[in-house]
Amino acid sequence: MLQYTNHFDTKTLDPFTLEKGFEAVHYEAQSKEVGYYHLPVMSQGLAEELHIIREDIDRRFNTIAVIGIGGSSLGIKAIERLLRPRTPNAKKIIYLENSDPVSIISEMKQIDKFRTLFIVISKSGGTVETLSIFKRLIVSFELTLDHSDQIYIVSDEDSILSHFADEHHLRRFAIPSNVGGRFSVLSAVGIVPLTLAGFDTAAILKGSQAFLERFWNRKEEHLLQKAAFYVTHKDQYPMNVLFAYSDTFEELGKWIVQLWGESLGKRTRRGERVGLTPISLIGSVDQHSFLQLIIEGPLNKTVTFVHIDHSEDHLMIPDLSLKFLEKSDFVNGVSFNDLINAQCKATMQSVLQSGVSVDEIAWKRIDEISVGEMIVYYELLTSISGALMEINTYDQPGVELGKTILTGYFQK
Amino acid sequence: MLQYTNHFDTKTLDPFTLEKGFEAVHYEAQSKEVGYYHLPVMSQGLAEELHIIREDIDRRFNTIAVIGIGGSSLGIKAIERLLRPRTPNAKKIIYLENSDPVSIISEMKQIDKFRTLFIVISKSGGTVETLSIFKRLIVSFELTLDHSDQIYIVSDEDSILSHFADEHHLRRFAIPSNVGGRFSVLSAVGIVPLTLAGFDTAAILKGSQAFLERFWNRKEEHLLQKAAFYVTHKDQYPMNVLFAYSDTFEELGKWIVQLWGESLGKRTRRGERVGLTPISLIGSVDQHSFLQLIIEGPLNKTVTFVHIDHSEDHLMIPDLSLKFLEKSDFVNGVSFNDLINAQCKATMQSVLQSGVSVDEIAWKRIDEISVGEMIVYYELLTSISGALMEINTYDQPGVELGKTILTGYFQK
Repeated sequence: MLQYTNHFDTKTLDPFTLEKGFEAVHYEAQSKEVGYYHLPVMSQGLAEELHIIREDIDRRFNTIAVIGIGGSSLGIKAIERLLRPRTPNAKKIIYLENSDPVSIISEMKQIDKFRTLFIVISKSGGTVETLSIFKRLIVSFELTLDHSDQIYIVSDEDSILSHFADEHHLRRFAIPSNVGGRFSVLSAVGIVPLTLAGFDTAAILKGSQAFLERFWNRKEEHLLQKAAFYVTHKDQYPMNVLFAYSDTFEELGKWIVQLWGESLGKRTRRGERVGLTPISLIGSVDQHSFLQLIIEGPLNKTVTFVHIDHSEDHLMIPDLSLKFLEKSDFVNGVSFNDLINAQCKATMQSVLQSGVSVDEIAWKRIDEISVGEMIVYYELLTSISGALMEINTYDQPGVELGKTILTGYFQK
Repeated sequence: MLQYTNHFDTKTLDPFTLEKGFEAVHYEAQSKEVGYYHLPVMSQGLAEELHIIREDIDRRFNTIAVIGIGGSSLGIKAIERLLRPRTPNAKKIIYLENSDPVSIISEMKQIDKFRTLFIVISKSGGTVETLSIFKRLIVSFELTLDHSDQIYIVSDEDSILSHFADEHHLRRFAIPSNVGGRFSVLSAVGIVPLTLAGFDTAAILKGSQAFLERFWNRKEEHLLQKAAFYVTHKDQYPMNVLFAYSDTFEELGKWIVQLWGESLGKRTRRGERVGLTPISLIGSVDQHSFLQLIIEGPLNKTVTFVHIDHSEDHLMIPDLSLKFLEKSDFVNGVSFNDLINAQCKATMQSVLQSGVSVDEIAWKRIDEISVGEMIVYYELLTSISGALMEINTYDQPGVELGKTILTGYFQK
């Protein structure tokens, strides 16, 4: 269980706003209008089913190539990065995402076709990067399509990619139609590659479900407060910074940026442009970069500090005093983990003193339960905020024009 | 030479503002109050001098470990990432930056002490992360200090770290005192590790110098326009997005975030908080993330699109039509490089149509000259903007409080 502390002023929040936020997401969940709330329970079966084929997969493959972009890769990367140090024997995962040839070539060089399971992931089934890269792999590695047992497909039940999978008798997994791409990491999108790679997805799902239950039972009210605070102050604080003190949060930060930015940047029914801009930082490195702007720049940002209290790595700063460098001796004999935590606390204190609205998420340690919790925490925060902003949290109409223009370039 | 196009409205800009911006940076350069303007010329000698010892270094070492954080690592990483594909035989560079024990352990595992040159970089000489990691390396790898030929120091002439270097007769390189950390990549900070690793730093410096000369000769006026536009619209557009269409720009984006955020987030002499928030995105991946917010969210961001027109990687999308996936056939037979460029142009067009202020930087290809140019371009843009905002662009007073609080935690 993570510990949440809202250091901003919660007293001025309208209790009615909090109720409205709760009711909105409760309705979305109950009516099954929005599906992600049910994934932690629904996907347990999938994780178990995958365990049955794990032995066979383990024998055959040592690498999983994920072909997907955006909601079809960010969540997988986030979980892999956080849990890799706890799961050192998990299979290597290669991501083929961007249409950048430099990256595609470099990733392809790492693929041994006989030892790689290819998982093609696209919610809509028509993502141009994903399909183009998939074609490149088919040709370069001379992959057989019909009845192939090294190509898996994850897509909407009725998508063109699912039809393609059925045509060639490929193993496929469906993403529920009421689960959007950026909310899909706990569906087959994340569960299939991560379980087959060897991550303990059942525990992740348990962590998610436990938090959801506490939330429905009104035991996590800080979440409603945070969403209400962000939305009622959206003109004053148009930016929300996540400042996480561990390099392993880098990909989770990117996942949150997509979730928050794409869900909440919308036109309202009245045509008004609304949105909150997410910014993801890593401590202590970004103390040497972005921190000055937070402390002395315009007070237009909220900041969430994330720290991990215990680490399994007891790497110490040696008790070594070097002539002329005695200034740094104050941390001699301290562990690097204690240093980074102290840096987080000191920075948080200085940011608070400068008048910035701050909240804090304390992890005891990085484990599957906590990762699962953090995922639904941010999904719920996004849904509540979207409901309070009276927008459609789950669509992305703004990106369609670019796709149409792109198609036009190539079609005569 | 890069090509710059300002798509925003430049007609309403006050010519006096442009002159003021030019005069301010011209004065900084002429008076030598600010030193980075002279680095492209000054560092040519250093690059040549390093070439003399290169042969010896090449024989002895295959890895360079850079121990530094913020301005002492971001620029090196940026240049390495951009030019690595052109310099495949360059030595491996390992970065030890963050106080995160997971990262330190993982990087240390890659170090062969007999084949690694350690370069410790700190402008002030007292950076706690850098000194703590350096001590860890001394103890873990049993490094001899006195007269060691595998430890180099880069620091201010008169810093405690330079005194330490002299005490132990270590090779050291000085950062000019009028060059700030985040403006120091073309000083010994970047030139020493990159030249010794095998990158063509002389060509980078030439690219920087050529742009600087054109700027001083008033041949790059678009730069003044852009700074003036950003500053006069800072309340309307408090965020400046860099949207670069190549994964290899990821580290350059982080370097720009530090340069822009830390330089311009300041209190004015009247105590007013000012600042512009930098956001770095990568295309096409972030079309699947942040783009929706740019297009439909509040019009509070400017966007700079960066694209590279030619790539040495002619990776093609195969001319392969798959049943049910014919929708993606419109890019069959197109190179991935043409696809990513078309994606950039289509997205830029759709962003322009949504009313966002846009400019464009076109690279013919990624080479040393262009990288050098891009570096001084952003440094100049930052300096001009800071001058127009009437702040001290070169200090970072806001981060001191956190350091004091941190020291207090550990001192009895």
